[in-house]
Amino acid sequence: MVNDRIAKLRSVMKEKGIFAYVIPSADYHQSEYVGEFFKGRQYISGFTGSAGTVVITQEKAILWTDGRYFLQADKELAGTCVELYKMGEENVPTTFEYIENEVPAGCKIGFDGRAMSAGMGKDFEASLSKKDITISYEGDLLDEVWENRPSLSEEKAFLLDVQFSGEDFKSKIARVRKAMEAKGATTHILTSLDDIAWLFNIRGGDVKFNPVVLSYAVVTLEKATLFVDANKLNEEILASFGEETVEIKGYFEIDEFVKTIEENQVVLVDNSRINYTILKNIPANVKVVDAMNPTTIFKAEKNAVEVENTKKCHIRDGVAVTKFMYWLKNNIGKIEITEISAADKMTELRAQQGNFIEPSFASIAGYKEHAAIVHYSATEETSKTLQPEGLFLLDSGGQYFDGTTDITRTYALGNLTEEEKSHFTSVARAMIRLSGAKFLHGVNGYYLDILARGIMWEQNLNYNHGTGHGIGHVLNVHEGPNGVRCDNRNSATLEEGMITTNEPGFYAAGSHGIRLENEMLCKKGVKNEFGQFMEFESITIAPIDLDAINVDSMKEDEKVYLNKYHAMVFETVSPFLTAEEAEWLKGYTRAI
Amino acid sequence: MVNDRIAKLRSVMKEKGIFAYVIPSADYHQSEYVGEFFKGRQYISGFTGSAGTVVITQEKAILWTDGRYFLQADKELAGTCVELYKMGEENVPTTFEYIENEVPAGCKIGFDGRAMSAGMGKDFEASLSKKDITISYEGDLLDEVWENRPSLSEEKAFLLDVQFSGEDFKSKIARVRKAMEAKGATTHILTSLDDIAWLFNIRGGDVKFNPVVLSYAVVTLEKATLFVDANKLNEEILASFGEETVEIKGYFEIDEFVKTIEENQVVLVDNSRINYTILKNIPANVKVVDAMNPTTIFKAEKNAVEVENTKKCHIRDGVAVTKFMYWLKNNIGKIEITEISAADKMTELRAQQGNFIEPSFASIAGYKEHAAIVHYSATEETSKTLQPEGLFLLDSGGQYFDGTTDITRTYALGNLTEEEKSHFTSVARAMIRLSGAKFLHGVNGYYLDILARGIMWEQNLNYNHGTGHGIGHVLNVHEGPNGVRCDNRNSATLEEGMITTNEPGFYAAGSHGIRLENEMLCKKGVKNEFGQFMEFESITIAPIDLDAINVDSMKEDEKVYLNKYHAMVFETVSPFLTAEEAEWLKGYTRAI
Repeated sequence: MVNDRIAKLRSVMKEKGIFAYVIPSADYHQSEYVGEFFKGRQYISGFTGSAGTVVITQEKAILWTDGRYFLQADKELAGTCVELYKMGEENVPTTFEYIENEVPAGCKIGFDGRAMSAGMGKDFEASLSKKDITISYEGDLLDEVWENRPSLSEEKAFLLDVQFSGEDFKSKIARVRKAMEAKGATTHILTSLDDIAWLFNIRGGDVKFNPVVLSYAVVTLEKATLFVDANKLNEEILASFGEETVEIKGYFEIDEFVKTIEENQVVLVDNSRINYTILKNIPANVKVVDAMNPTTIFKAEKNAVEVENTKKCHIRDGVAVTKFMYWLKNNIGKIEITEISAADKMTELRAQQGNFIEPSFASIAGYKEHAAIVHYSATEETSKTLQPEGLFLLDSGGQYFDGTTDITRTYALGNLTEEEKSHFTSVARAMIRLSGAKFLHGVNGYYLDILARGIMWEQNLNYNHGTGHGIGHVLNVHEGPNGVRCDNRNSATLEEGMITTNEPGFYAAGSHGIRLENEMLCKKGVKNEFGQFMEFESITIAPIDLDAINVDSMKEDEKVYLNKYHAMVFETVSPFLTAEEAEWLKGYTRAI
Repeated sequence: MVNDRIAKLRSVMKEKGIFAYVIPSADYHQSEYVGEFFKGRQYISGFTGSAGTVVITQEKAILWTDGRYFLQADKELAGTCVELYKMGEENVPTTFEYIENEVPAGCKIGFDGRAMSAGMGKDFEASLSKKDITISYEGDLLDEVWENRPSLSEEKAFLLDVQFSGEDFKSKIARVRKAMEAKGATTHILTSLDDIAWLFNIRGGDVKFNPVVLSYAVVTLEKATLFVDANKLNEEILASFGEETVEIKGYFEIDEFVKTIEENQVVLVDNSRINYTILKNIPANVKVVDAMNPTTIFKAEKNAVEVENTKKCHIRDGVAVTKFMYWLKNNIGKIEITEISAADKMTELRAQQGNFIEPSFASIAGYKEHAAIVHYSATEETSKTLQPEGLFLLDSGGQYFDGTTDITRTYALGNLTEEEKSHFTSVARAMIRLSGAKFLHGVNGYYLDILARGIMWEQNLNYNHGTGHGIGHVLNVHEGPNGVRCDNRNSATLEEGMITTNEPGFYAAGSHGIRLENEMLCKKGVKNEFGQFMEFESITIAPIDLDAINVDSMKEDEKVYLNKYHAMVFETVSPFLTAEEAEWLKGYTRAI
């Protein structure tokens, strides 16, 4: 079947004189998750993993994917003509290198420019122009091949009322226009779905886990145009625009619209967020300013209403996580619990707390050695049954009508080895040290990263991922520009209202994996002659499993922090628990 | 006298149609210190401070300087027509703003382009072109005004033999050429004196405290041209160039030479280091690549021979500092000691240890509240007499034939207040925490800064300066690109062989100032599956005054570090002391 599809595509390519066709795993908005309509890479190759790129020529069909998916891809590609190129392995060229080297000079390659970031498209352009290779980027060749292509999501949008968003459209667009003017821009094109959702105060269900609406927006100093299936918008949304001029156009009309931008305009776009087709469609005589979308920073600095609502949803989320822990600790070894059923139980408990929309991402539930695979995703085939021993890691979160959560806890299901306890305690100490950070305004997450990671480094250990990421408000669980990493020197300055995760970990391959994750709200502290001090408030409210803590390895101030945190957890969560659960929680939040 | 000089300058300006003339405090090489020949700003204004800029128009004569010099400038400008503009005070325009606002459209301003960095010159250009203001940058108007201008330094240069430099000219220039080729460059212009000194393995005495030689260099893939007073070079230096082609031209010939660079050349320059005239003299049709001088990073990564020699000079330097401390502790209250005489004593003791050239910078010797002025420099008028009480800060260093040192110690001269002890202990803890840092290769000093500064921040305190700077080898005491700061996110990745100071402090205005400074060598630590770990070795060897430490406020691991450090100090330094000094040192390096 896959081979037939590829044969069809090849004949279309031949017709159009395209030597190589690239099919990435992307929608037109650089979204983290994509809808069925956009799963062309899966359609053409049969590979169902979340990440991968396919290149088709008349001779070859190649799938690139990363280490998470080598086994799965091997299995799913069996019997097809598609070869697997294992990313990151020695002597395996990148997609980019492959095309650069294998496509003959003077030929043409193709891809759907809408599914390629402007930055990546420009890189292709620069590299291929040396060999006089041209790029065909308009439209999607799969349209001519893919029978019964799934339609675009038709989920309705809803208004995130000002009682939840804290700022109306009028105020938000005024701020965007001010930022445009500061950069000398008169037109601003937005394609990132979370930026659009924030600006228009709309949410929807077009992308799994991300409550966004498939759309584009063009903002000028006088009006705004929203490119979206008009059927998705209700009266409430339209009314919320008030006196502002907002024109609604069809989702696919954006490309032609961009071609009509007038010569005297200065267009502000973020080349790392818009797609290549949009960039190419801007008339050549229009001046383009490439800069971060103003909404990106506005969105990251949560206002008082968003903070208040976020805290409310964290209480419910904390109740759900605490109930999960109670259930897990009391049922382990008694009933059958698997990685998948545990994650499902967590979702069920979240849903029971009210205001729940959906999970905020695909849960990561890993028992023992599975937890050491950082991007592990349990399938029916791999899902382990949990036993009353070792460590179980669960990284999960919820989309609520009042906020978005992301929490990781690792649980001792029974006796632990000394090594497991030692690693767990180090991870807890790392999280605590970063939580207690106090800093002068002006620094970023790169500056603070060592507070967490340094605990591991002191022992010649490390975790191979960031310590934290920004998180949206009833929006994407991964949201820039704030973050805490050791590999991004220029992440955003930490500002009041930013919410960032704090999730150090440790992974012993083949044995166990540990991660603890709280969300932290950045707040103003003391202001004195030295400047404005800033600090974090941990807004995630769930116990850290004391069964896995080696008390003697913790420093005094770390114990003080943990005890205070646990006292807060008990006080906040216990009113929502049964008497048995509350009694049990008292023990798990005891001072150590 | 000053007024006469200004009058003369004004008449030259009138003749040349120059509306405003800018006179900075700089030589042609962006050096930290400048020779007498370059002190035009002092000549024209009478102000002798180290930092300041003068702007002269027919109506006005203005000196800008910073807070360190307000009092001194007030005094020195008295009776002249020069007005003082206090930098950093409210409603005081910067020099840049002043010129932008006050010079009428269509006029011409002037400055000696050689005394202006290329970057700054380009900023002027960009800002003034909007008002159609032109810039006259060739030559120095003071030449026509300044009678008996001091001549350029004529100090002889000497060869830093390969037994001290660890790498001969042939190898160094080969590395530079490789770096040029990697950037597609065929010609490289060097104007920073420390880069030139490093590359040619020459040292000299043309700039106070910096053992460099006034020169420029142009390196092509085939030859090198050194623009220097040929009388400074000895046979040994010329012989050291071996088979490499090195042409010697006069110091002032550089400007005309640059104008003759051929069209097919690609010129590599560092716009933050070269002067504006050089940049302007590069023919318009020659391609210019603006990037950090390759020598800057080569120079920062000290080789094994440089490290070995540096360690040797640190032993002698440590002996001198220990002897100073003994002398101070035993003579305070008994003989007259002033800030100046104490600093002189320190220099005298350094000179006695051998291989000494000169101090590596102007000592900062501050007693009590004077030490709270970060850039305090004692003069005959301000120099306080030390009493047997309070804190005395001495920041000093030496240029030796085998290395360069920079050390700060703060001493208790008698009883201290609880607050003084508490601040001192915090500063010591900050230095110790950074000294003990362990980190994966790839991070920079910005990432590590919080280890020191965080100790102060936890108490809502701060010190308003960097935690550390790179240091040269028999070269400038301030040397990039490595450093430890909270305000430079992109300082260089810390590499094996880099030497960086570690100098947290605390300053209580009007009361006391504390700073402790060790130099740290960056070394490779464990390499394992997580990567290459790096760590520091403290190569400064002198006691931290235990009389000022509040032992109870130190954490266990901090005490362990300090005790180990002090044991090393005793072991290394005591063999070079008298029996009395050694006995005394035993007490001051005791375990706490």
